[in-house]
Amino acid sequence: MGEALILHEDPISGNCYKIRLTAALLGLPLERRSYCIMQGETRTPEFLAKMNANGRIPVLQVGDRFLPESNAACAYLAHGSALIPADRFDRADMLHWMFFEQYSHEPNVATLRFWLSVVGEAQLSDLQRGLVSQKREGGRAALALMDAHLAGRDWFVGAQASLADIVLFAYTHVADEGGFRLDEFPAIPGWIERVQNLANYVPMRG
Amino acid sequence: MGEALILHEDPISGNCYKIRLTAALLGLPLERRSYCIMQGETRTPEFLAKMNANGRIPVLQVGDRFLPESNAACAYLAHGSALIPADRFDRADMLHWMFFEQYSHEPNVATLRFWLSVVGEAQLSDLQRGLVSQKREGGRAALALMDAHLAGRDWFVGAQASLADIVLFAYTHVADEGGFRLDEFPAIPGWIERVQNLANYVPMRG
Repeated sequence: MGEALILHEDPISGNCYKIRLTAALLGLPLERRSYCIMQGETRTPEFLAKMNANGRIPVLQVGDRFLPESNAACAYLAHGSALIPADRFDRADMLHWMFFEQYSHEPNVATLRFWLSVVGEAQLSDLQRGLVSQKREGGRAALALMDAHLAGRDWFVGAQASLADIVLFAYTHVADEGGFRLDEFPAIPGWIERVQNLANYVPMRG
Repeated sequence: MGEALILHEDPISGNCYKIRLTAALLGLPLERRSYCIMQGETRTPEFLAKMNANGRIPVLQVGDRFLPESNAACAYLAHGSALIPADRFDRADMLHWMFFEQYSHEPNVATLRFWLSVVGEAQLSDLQRGLVSQKREGGRAALALMDAHLAGRDWFVGAQASLADIVLFAYTHVADEGGFRLDEFPAIPGWIERVQNLANYVPMRG
């Protein structure tokens, strides 16, 4: 590896947890620096200029270079490992699930968790309140799609865990904090357990 | 390559165009099959069962396998080509911009184009109408971030065009159809021209 790895994160963020989990599964040492989203610590002029002009965590620092976007950081860490399938189609299919996660899952499942468990329902703007039912429906559709795909198979792509599983796991296993009921999706709890049983697994809080 | 490549697409979609542009730049033959989003042709039981349970185009068919998510399809096609940087950090940085495109750019810039130029402002729901200003702001922030990054450099990652440029180009070069003014972003028009001058470039409509 060579270069030091530093994760700039907020510990409540599932997007940050993905990177910690990937590093743990691969046995890579990762230094952690904490920022509070709720206090605007990722929107300071210094953060925007140096770490991420997009004002978001996580950012993975590799030596003196900065890599935003959680799924890109996981791909950097997992380069050349068994968490990325060797087969060309499977590798693209892993990316398919990672893009699905950021487009169809995270904006619904993670956003409702943030709104309901972190911000608090009473603090939501009218616009946010108006979006809750749409995000509920979108989140349930994403979970139903995952559930259907997992019926009869252990992992999202191929015969072993890949980054597709890691990145989808992060917000799925705490979806109840956004008001989702995982018992509606019969194939998901077993898959969650399989991820939790991977060697070197680390929990989100710890 | 070996297996036949078929793009299941709606020609108005920038996400589909990304794949056609990637194939063209690489000289890969791509058969095209057309579906109309506006007529619900990607939500039929047959489409959901066979092509993409998520009910979205594009889907890249590789032989008898189906690959949803535009950016994953581009990555499949570009595997082993110069459109994917050889350097490990640069490759992850390319993915960073591709995830940025799907998370921070497309839901704003492409959605406003769809709402204003395809659906029509008069047909928007109250919820959609309420989101226009937030999406306008989000889209302008995404374009401003691209503009700042491009100041003093020709391409998003490294010294030549990569998939980061291709996928960001698709909706950026038609952002005016969503009511965005590209002349507010001085570094973007020159970059658009550089993409259009790539060997084997194909336009969105054609």
